[in-house]
Amino acid sequence: MTWVTGAEGSPYGVHNLPYGVFRTADREPRVGVRVGDLVLDLGGAEAAGLVLAAGALGRPRLNEFLALGRPQWTAVRQRITELLTDSAHRAAVEPLLVPLAEVELLLPFEVADYVDFYSSEHHAANVGQIFRPGQPPLLPNWKHLPIGYHGRAGTVVVSGTPVVRPQGQRATPQGPVTGPSVRLDIEAEVGFVVGVPSPLGRPVAAGDFAEHVFGVVLVNDWSARDIQAWEYQPLGPFLGKSFATSVSAWVTPLEALGAAFVPAPDQDPPVADYLRDEPHLGLDLSLTVEWNGERVSQPPFATMYWTPAQQLAHLTVNGASLRTGDLYASGTVSGPERHQVGSFLELTWGGTEPVKVGGGETRTFLEDGDTVTITATAPGPDGTTLALGEVTGTIFPAR
Amino acid sequence: MTWVTGAEGSPYGVHNLPYGVFRTADREPRVGVRVGDLVLDLGGAEAAGLVLAAGALGRPRLNEFLALGRPQWTAVRQRITELLTDSAHRAAVEPLLVPLAEVELLLPFEVADYVDFYSSEHHAANVGQIFRPGQPPLLPNWKHLPIGYHGRAGTVVVSGTPVVRPQGQRATPQGPVTGPSVRLDIEAEVGFVVGVPSPLGRPVAAGDFAEHVFGVVLVNDWSARDIQAWEYQPLGPFLGKSFATSVSAWVTPLEALGAAFVPAPDQDPPVADYLRDEPHLGLDLSLTVEWNGERVSQPPFATMYWTPAQQLAHLTVNGASLRTGDLYASGTVSGPERHQVGSFLELTWGGTEPVKVGGGETRTFLEDGDTVTITATAPGPDGTTLALGEVTGTIFPAR
Repeated sequence: MTWVTGAEGSPYGVHNLPYGVFRTADREPRVGVRVGDLVLDLGGAEAAGLVLAAGALGRPRLNEFLALGRPQWTAVRQRITELLTDSAHRAAVEPLLVPLAEVELLLPFEVADYVDFYSSEHHAANVGQIFRPGQPPLLPNWKHLPIGYHGRAGTVVVSGTPVVRPQGQRATPQGPVTGPSVRLDIEAEVGFVVGVPSPLGRPVAAGDFAEHVFGVVLVNDWSARDIQAWEYQPLGPFLGKSFATSVSAWVTPLEALGAAFVPAPDQDPPVADYLRDEPHLGLDLSLTVEWNGERVSQPPFATMYWTPAQQLAHLTVNGASLRTGDLYASGTVSGPERHQVGSFLELTWGGTEPVKVGGGETRTFLEDGDTVTITATAPGPDGTTLALGEVTGTIFPAR
Repeated sequence: MTWVTGAEGSPYGVHNLPYGVFRTADREPRVGVRVGDLVLDLGGAEAAGLVLAAGALGRPRLNEFLALGRPQWTAVRQRITELLTDSAHRAAVEPLLVPLAEVELLLPFEVADYVDFYSSEHHAANVGQIFRPGQPPLLPNWKHLPIGYHGRAGTVVVSGTPVVRPQGQRATPQGPVTGPSVRLDIEAEVGFVVGVPSPLGRPVAAGDFAEHVFGVVLVNDWSARDIQAWEYQPLGPFLGKSFATSVSAWVTPLEALGAAFVPAPDQDPPVADYLRDEPHLGLDLSLTVEWNGERVSQPPFATMYWTPAQQLAHLTVNGASLRTGDLYASGTVSGPERHQVGSFLELTWGGTEPVKVGGGETRTFLEDGDTVTITATAPGPDGTTLALGEVTGTIFPAR
């Protein structure tokens, strides 16, 4: 039970407590946690001696806190829970609660490297059927390793940031032309935020996932399908992705997701030793994609073929080091059904089957002024539900 | 004329003056420039009031200096030249000169995003012939845009850092196996270091190259060909590259390379408007690759099809922002002749034609203990020659 007004029974109750960075008219950027529709000013709380985190909570980014590691993450969460549930603290803490409506939420952490995986079997198979009809939907390597690539860390932006329609080259029957993308799409994904680094030359075992990964964000990996299709051979996606990747303002700690870990799909053929994670667990997150206010899809994250622990083990098996602030995303989350896909490429089957969006209109790809919002819920402790921070963005016309 | 002993006539004379970050037994990391076989301690010079750079020269990385922009870069270079050529300054400056043998050179800048291009026509055609014999050597997009992809910024290391042989999956006739790479290769490249950032949503024109790019490093983009071949479809290179990318400890400012800009190869078909750079200039850098001390190749950078200004315009045409510390590399530098290629894949034609290396041995790919050193020279002012800082690395056994 929390003494915070409106927080009890909220999907942002004290069982959740996601971290973000915020500012107000009279407060410099600092770390906060969301509780109900309020933000607890953790920078202020640390300055007042109510919580101890080596000064990390007064910083304008989560990185210093992320670097502290699991024991400190646990201790800070326990202390925050105490502050918000023991009414003895109410007088000291209440002045540090700021209504969400009065804060500006910033990019919660400085992104070191950004890796994007491709770990939904349904998504990979759909894309294969759309682009390579009549051929096997999955490439030969897909079930042997989690396919991934590096994206542009410098263009990861916080939820709400306008997305300017990218210009670029696309192929036409008359040859390549340059102009605004005409097949602008989304990819609904879940991202994992690395706190504790690892040294160069030392792989991280799948079993050490929770020692390194602090928590989870929602991700929209905006994708210009026409630019991507023309550029991607042979070195993969580049400008079709690098114009913007949106992440939620709130980072949900793994500790809030204890009840959401569920057995992941069986893997056949058996995976390489370094990819064996026991227990083999995914996350039961239910995503929702809204297009101009209309719910168009509900991707189930629990169907992902490769788990976040396997992705981490793969990412480092070659000795690549981890840095605080590394972000790796799952790849588009698509379930087996059409209403469960995480991209409009799949939802409209390559742009051939328009869908109804908000305002009584139909769409294949994104038009200027369109807004896409991705939300998610997860099972919390004791039958509760918790919400992940939304990731939203509106398309602005090409410059 | 410089008063610095041994610097006159050296390829590291006062016409060169590359920047790096160094430390000694009694000095914390700080910025320096190389002159002859000495390092001028710029952090110390700034602290003593001999040069002004907003405190940037006392930092353990070049990023703060890089962010100052072209007018400041010019002013600092002019002042350093004055200090090293006017003997009136000798008494004040000489104590700030440290023998190269007494310093440890560190990674010169913190890498923001790392992009790797693929801009040598000869390299792309060689790779096409090796992997797709009987088909057109270049893919249809290659002459329309500079193909590139994002690499891992966190594993960019300074010259001299040991390179641990990566583990990973590779395909065999019996199916994929996991183990140390057996086709470990190099890619000799030239990298461009971004100083001045650009905002999200605003492309950078090719003509603004010198406003944003500070200078040049040599790059060895170590590549595990077997890991790369198995993983790269459809999203491009990942673990085959991300274990280590070595850069020279010295960043050569563009201002030192004025005499090295030469007309780049003609481009046919004509390029898109945003890729037109007038004048269309490449850099006349002569690279040398040594394998265990034996000179095995001399790649000519002036043969590159796409120029660094075109690469920068392409990288940002979709509105991607630049950050201080962004690094983009040219891709493997290969000339038309076999003794001019920048990878061992090409030098040994896919591992089928062993080459003689130092110590009377032969090789196809890298063995443990092998050392590769890439150097380069460029024309300097008034018929002089200048050297770029070397990039070297030795292969350590897989862990």
